[in-house]
Amino acid sequence: MLTAIFYLALAAEAMTAALAAGRRKMDWFGVCLLACVTALGGGTTRDVLLGHYPLYWVANPYVLLLICGSALAAIAAARVIEKLRWPFLVLDGLGLVIFTIVGCDVALGMNQHPLIVIVAGMLTGIVGGILRDVLCNDVPLVFRGELYATISIVTGAIYYFGLKIGFNHEGVIVLALAVGFPLRVFAILKHWEMPKFVYDRDLH
Amino acid sequence: MLTAIFYLALAAEAMTAALAAGRRKMDWFGVCLLACVTALGGGTTRDVLLGHYPLYWVANPYVLLLICGSALAAIAAARVIEKLRWPFLVLDGLGLVIFTIVGCDVALGMNQHPLIVIVAGMLTGIVGGILRDVLCNDVPLVFRGELYATISIVTGAIYYFGLKIGFNHEGVIVLALAVGFPLRVFAILKHWEMPKFVYDRDLH
Amino acid sequence: MLTAIFYLALAAEAMTAALAAGRRKMDWFGVCLLACVTALGGGTTRDVLLGHYPLYWVANPYVLLLICGSALAAIAAARVIEKLRWPFLVLDGLGLVIFTIVGCDVALGMNQHPLIVIVAGMLTGIVGGILRDVLCNDVPLVFRGELYATISIVTGAIYYFGLKIGFNHEGVIVLALAVGFPLRVFAILKHWEMPKFVYDRDLH
Repeated sequence: MLTAIFYLALAAEAMTAALAAGRRKMDWFGVCLLACVTALGGGTTRDVLLGHYPLYWVANPYVLLLICGSALAAIAAARVIEKLRWPFLVLDGLGLVIFTIVGCDVALGMNQHPLIVIVAGMLTGIVGGILRDVLCNDVPLVFRGELYATISIVTGAIYYFGLKIGFNHEGVIVLALAVGFPLRVFAILKHWEMPKFVYDRDLH
Repeated sequence: MLTAIFYLALAAEAMTAALAAGRRKMDWFGVCLLACVTALGGGTTRDVLLGHYPLYWVANPYVLLLICGSALAAIAAARVIEKLRWPFLVLDGLGLVIFTIVGCDVALGMNQHPLIVIVAGMLTGIVGGILRDVLCNDVPLVFRGELYATISIVTGAIYYFGLKIGFNHEGVIVLALAVGFPLRVFAILKHWEMPKFVYDRDLH
Repeated sequence: MLTAIFYLALAAEAMTAALAAGRRKMDWFGVCLLACVTALGGGTTRDVLLGHYPLYWVANPYVLLLICGSALAAIAAARVIEKLRWPFLVLDGLGLVIFTIVGCDVALGMNQHPLIVIVAGMLTGIVGGILRDVLCNDVPLVFRGELYATISIVTGAIYYFGLKIGFNHEGVIVLALAVGFPLRVFAILKHWEMPKFVYDRDLH
């Protein structure tokens, strides 16, 4: 069940990355590469930083075909995807929670410090989008858009401390989903944002 | 022979990176760093992703001097280089094929999956240019310019399956060059491009 | 003593990164992430390239709290920090020398080639600022601003060859500080820059 949602969330990330590539007039190869970087960049960065080899997609290369296939499907069906707002919103929220849990699990399996467990979950959730924005030549959205990283941190903390105080694994996953998923959906719908730090040197 | 072309292709990449740096008014240090990132970034990214240590330039640090020397020579001789269109076109084509083969060989030596062998060849060929464009604050050219990554994938596939079906090593290299090199030269001369995906959200 | 300056320099880097984030109107999370990338990006890149695990901040996760705390303090005290020009200038100069020495020490501990020792010191000093500028969507300042990387290379060379010819460790550190620190302070105050390479293709 979780694995199924994980793959669906990867495909959804690939599709939204493909639309971002289309706005930049990239070619089909650029669309596929941007989709791979967006969907796999978070987990890859986490694993490189933790020295956790082999990387997920190197060990499971067929995931590259899933992602490129989803991205190319998004080219064909861009107008339809635009209208599927609710499924993508749901997959975005589920994906954030599940990517966070997967990231925490990797760090837990390496006996990392609690702070690193939570950071590993957050990196898994957010770095793909940062790399997408850098390659599209934008200031990353996660630095100023709706709550995203913060929800990943909260979810990771619930997951870590839930396991720590003795909840069973399924229970903690359900708890993390029950908190993180609605938070993310509301953050998008209600445009919840963190306070901005606006500093204009020239005004002083 | 291949080694000689490999070093010449590194030097040529360093020189074209130096001209890109000059268009951004970088200083001599920036020129050298951009040249190193462009010439070595592909192989470095491949090795970090595969966990293949030590990196090529860490084991062979004199290659850094070759690259910085070529980049500084390009500063002195920018007007001449501009006129040497044909040698650079040839080195670009040869370099793409040879970088691809080198990348495939690394993954083959680690017994990776065929898909990863081809991806490793492609990363070796294209990531240097992507990093150059990100550092110059451009949307990477490989996402929308003449055929490049696609030719690297085709070349890598020929190399992998050629070895697989029992060709000898020299024969496969010649075959890869015979296909990849003219493809790349024609792609530049004829402006062969992949289909673009142009998606303008605001039109809907 | 050196450790104390190291932490102070990390905090100072975090604070200047926070001000850069404020100029881009980032939110509090973006401020913290940009501060971490700026302060730790150099050492992280060095360690990933050398295959030197675990990374410093993974082994010492409390440094993340120091950096985020400094960055958030900079939000509260932006106007004050603006006026503290001298302390930040001193910390910038001391930080450059100490980051360089720390980087050289890591490579020395791995018995790397002298060129790689000096490159490791330089990467530690400069990559954080490059990543900050890429995430802020600028062409990196180190490619065209006041002398910075060059001073790191000079400092690293003094450190390496000082140890090589038999100076004791404290003596070499003092020597590196005595050369690198005033060079950096004067470079900022006097706007010492490297020669630029300005190449405008369209003029030809």
